[in-house]
Amino acid sequence: MRRFVVIGQTATASPDFFLDDVPGSSGRLDVLLRCVRAALLVSHGVRRDTVIYLVLEGGTRAPRTVRISGATAEYLRQDERSLAGTLQKMLGYVEDKDAFDAGTRGISIARGGLDVVIADLGAYTPYVLDEGGADVRGSKLDVENPVFFVGDHKGFSEQTRARIDALGSTTAISVGPISLHADDAIAIIGNELDRHKMT
Amino acid sequence: MRRFVVIGQTATASPDFFLDDVPGSSGRLDVLLRCVRAALLVSHGVRRDTVIYLVLEGGTRAPRTVRISGATAEYLRQDERSLAGTLQKMLGYVEDKDAFDAGTRGISIARGGLDVVIADLGAYTPYVLDEGGADVRGSKLDVENPVFFVGDHKGFSEQTRARIDALGSTTAISVGPISLHADDAIAIIGNELDRHKMT
Repeated sequence: MRRFVVIGQTATASPDFFLDDVPGSSGRLDVLLRCVRAALLVSHGVRRDTVIYLVLEGGTRAPRTVRISGATAEYLRQDERSLAGTLQKMLGYVEDKDAFDAGTRGISIARGGLDVVIADLGAYTPYVLDEGGADVRGSKLDVENPVFFVGDHKGFSEQTRARIDALGSTTAISVGPISLHADDAIAIIGNELDRHKMT
Repeated sequence: MRRFVVIGQTATASPDFFLDDVPGSSGRLDVLLRCVRAALLVSHGVRRDTVIYLVLEGGTRAPRTVRISGATAEYLRQDERSLAGTLQKMLGYVEDKDAFDAGTRGISIARGGLDVVIADLGAYTPYVLDEGGADVRGSKLDVENPVFFVGDHKGFSEQTRARIDALGSTTAISVGPISLHADDAIAIIGNELDRHKMT
């Protein structure tokens, strides 16, 4: 199973944003929504072997984390407004727990940030996306459960980065010579794993 | 210069779609908008060396083609709704010509489809994105002006594909073992060119 963890430093954990202005009213939740599409959706289908966590550190109800599992996801559409609407409903109606449950249509929400994600991971090998990291093409990726930590448009906070580095044997990887949007980086990592037939 | 030509078989050439439901009211113009982001926008910037053409074959005013040039683009934002709003305004106010002009803020619109694109290309080397094509990683890409023809969610019509193949020495390329969304494919091709420092 491949997993992506996207940390939204300002992305709202509350449903009180406007679908007509997601970037301006949600603390740039749009950045994370595009990561959902890139991680989970392919031409005419869903990547059943992939999970994405969205760590929402913005707004009055933060921290909360959304987990979307490709294996059980339903009705996920690729356009931003649909994804924003789905997430807004879930953020409003779901009663948070202290850990992820099976969820509804593949989506579960838990109280907490990076800690609740790490508690959910089980066995895994951590990678962190970093412009100064080793090229993903030359990196050892043939592990059973790779987990990729990805920053938002602001990168990582010092605290978050220190936490990720402290996980033990975290590998810093980069996707190329030009700094890309998080969703493009996720698409490129997904492609790299596809080429090795690794999940 | 690197250029992408995305053919929208149903994407509307008219401004009469709804920003609240772009996928449902625009003939899936949203697919093409995501290609604009992937082709032109990187972390905190615009790819000045890139141009994207959107061939709009849907709606009452088709065919029309939008050309967006990274070199002169202004105020391009990465979220779909903003891009849709920008395009809607341009589709409504721009008086079409029979060829592209310098445009407004990097955007020019011309009457016609693939023909008006080809007339605008000058010297170039054509590639077509095709699941059965050669792997982009092994393909010769060190040419001065690569042009990549990309289908929408429906692929290419037979007529369009025949036209592309007839351009002369068109190379069919693929981006990997799994069929991806057009925007992800564009991100991966962009990354491949970045790695060779080719434009």
